[in-house]
Amino acid sequence: VSAPAASAGSDDDRMARVALSRLVEPGDHRVVSLVAELGAVKLRELLSQDPESSGLRTDVHARLPTLDPERDLDLATRQGIRFVTPGDDEWPSRLDDLMRAEILQERVGPPLGLWVKGPLRLDQLAESVAVVGSRSSTTYGDDVAAAISAVVASSGRPVVSGAAFGIDVAAHRGALSMEGPTVAILACGADRDYPMAHQALLRHLAKTCAVISELPPGCAPTRGRFLSRNRLIAALTRGTVVVEAAVRSGALNTANWAGRLNRPLMGVPGPVTSGPSQGVHQLVRSGAATLVTNGAEVLEVVGDSGSHLVEAPHAPARPRDRLSRRLAQVLDAVPVASPAPVDSIASAAGIGLVEVSSALTNLHRNGLVERSQSGWRLAPAAQL
Amino acid sequence: VSAPAASAGSDDDRMARVALSRLVEPGDHRVVSLVAELGAVKLRELLSQDPESSGLRTDVHARLPTLDPERDLDLATRQGIRFVTPGDDEWPSRLDDLMRAEILQERVGPPLGLWVKGPLRLDQLAESVAVVGSRSSTTYGDDVAAAISAVVASSGRPVVSGAAFGIDVAAHRGALSMEGPTVAILACGADRDYPMAHQALLRHLAKTCAVISELPPGCAPTRGRFLSRNRLIAALTRGTVVVEAAVRSGALNTANWAGRLNRPLMGVPGPVTSGPSQGVHQLVRSGAATLVTNGAEVLEVVGDSGSHLVEAPHAPARPRDRLSRRLAQVLDAVPVASPAPVDSIASAAGIGLVEVSSALTNLHRNGLVERSQSGWRLAPAAQL
Repeated sequence: VSAPAASAGSDDDRMARVALSRLVEPGDHRVVSLVAELGAVKLRELLSQDPESSGLRTDVHARLPTLDPERDLDLATRQGIRFVTPGDDEWPSRLDDLMRAEILQERVGPPLGLWVKGPLRLDQLAESVAVVGSRSSTTYGDDVAAAISAVVASSGRPVVSGAAFGIDVAAHRGALSMEGPTVAILACGADRDYPMAHQALLRHLAKTCAVISELPPGCAPTRGRFLSRNRLIAALTRGTVVVEAAVRSGALNTANWAGRLNRPLMGVPGPVTSGPSQGVHQLVRSGAATLVTNGAEVLEVVGDSGSHLVEAPHAPARPRDRLSRRLAQVLDAVPVASPAPVDSIASAAGIGLVEVSSALTNLHRNGLVERSQSGWRLAPAAQL
Repeated sequence: VSAPAASAGSDDDRMARVALSRLVEPGDHRVVSLVAELGAVKLRELLSQDPESSGLRTDVHARLPTLDPERDLDLATRQGIRFVTPGDDEWPSRLDDLMRAEILQERVGPPLGLWVKGPLRLDQLAESVAVVGSRSSTTYGDDVAAAISAVVASSGRPVVSGAAFGIDVAAHRGALSMEGPTVAILACGADRDYPMAHQALLRHLAKTCAVISELPPGCAPTRGRFLSRNRLIAALTRGTVVVEAAVRSGALNTANWAGRLNRPLMGVPGPVTSGPSQGVHQLVRSGAATLVTNGAEVLEVVGDSGSHLVEAPHAPARPRDRLSRRLAQVLDAVPVASPAPVDSIASAAGIGLVEVSSALTNLHRNGLVERSQSGWRLAPAAQL
């Protein structure tokens, strides 16, 4: 009796998904499971016929007839917002990970679709990196977030964050400072400027990159929606960097999602005396996050295995590096403080008197030892 | 023809060890291996009979007759310095790890004995913790080193360090601030005040705890002796904490020794923008060191398994923590910014109108939501 299931990507499928996304909160695992089983069109149909069949609340049944998805889509289009569904070419395949059984057990699944304002295609997020953190960040945290984001965006990888105060906005701005791609994922409609203080930033992102939301235009941010949004940030990106995070914070919620989704999780350390770094230190201590200190190390983690290898930092070369093994052996036996005669240096070095004497002359010529009445000692240039 | 081998701990053994320790640099692996095989007395005898038999340099043979170990010991005793050998009760058994084959491959072995100035028995070091780091430390590093050392010493565990400028002296002082035990291990004779600026500290340690050296009294510090001293710091302690360390530094040398000796290695993070923290971040990144942020976490690592468990830091309780699951569900659906009417909150919460309405009244009474003409929104107290 029902019409044949509309294929994913069809107009019917799109309309059904818009309608369903108005009915339930983001990622509602019951609706997501039913859509996976029956298709969105069929589910919408069943819900309008039989309120009990779905196991959903009866208010869903009551609200269904009041919806007007065609008008929703039309209004969105006029605001420059498109609704991307799993049937679309640009749909980011990473979101499929949200269908895994262990994720559905958390009573949450993938989005029914994503509302996108901006020219960036969602499949370009495949190589993106999330940079998130505390809203009550320190200047140190902001600076490091911006520096890391600048390097990530310079490599062509979009920097994904949540447009919140603190680390989020520092991350967006760091990417923009290099004219690199950066994307905001919101906990309210993609048409809303939240927080209001970031209106100019959000409009710029919508014009040049993308502002993304799982919620239909007009929806207000709630705590529940922030938590759902955090799972999207983790799911859409290749890895997540937490810059500063208080012990209980939204950033740690995103970090947990990255862990559940097997995405590399990275943490930037800070002073142990700094509250906003406590959460990050916990993540590193527990083994959940890899410690990173700059953008190159982030690229090493999210890059293809073996690419972007970072050379470990090394100290500048010292004069003693250029010495032969024998000369270094003599130098290592020269006293640091009070001068000693040649014979005592020779016995400490375990090398004969004549050789040590000529070695000391050589070292003296190179400014590495000092000579006095009572013997030889290290010159300042050769101090440890 | 030779006398029967003197047993370890005998006066002959002690004298032979004093003589040998005057002949070679600390931890000379050839002498150490021969002592292990033949005993110190026999080796001394052989060296004086046949310069070639030992494979040691002939200058050893030439210098042997000039030595006067009895006088050395006598002079040391008058300075309040005792020579502790493997035959003595207080000999720290941890040093046996330096006899392991993979350590001897590094061309270095255990000390022939230790010169000790101070009342602390060496076997009390069994539970000690090394706190080491950069001589060019920051105020941040000094403060954290002192705070960690204060906690470690308060637990009764000696804090071991090298009496150098920077982190070392901060560690000693942190322990002393709690009147806890702390021990300096030097790269020169235990009678020498090096560095001179720490004369008062070293004399205080020698009076109340211990100043230890592998080198006979009078010996001057050399670069080679600093490196040997670092192996002793790692070997004598249960674990090593590195507070700040430049990329190439003595502290990292101590850290490497801790690794080779399978001692727990801990690193204190700092700002990624701080040079002295770079070396520590490398240790944590490479997996060589565990990140620690305070003394309790250090005790957790070095304590007996399961003791000293640290409770993860947690944020102060928030008003919403006390809510029932249903009330929290309603609160999570209340807009953060612009107020919304009851019915939109009810549909976001997925809960019936009547229940939501009474829940909002309850939340309002608890100061978690605000009411206005256009509906409800979160009160500041309930903001994320």
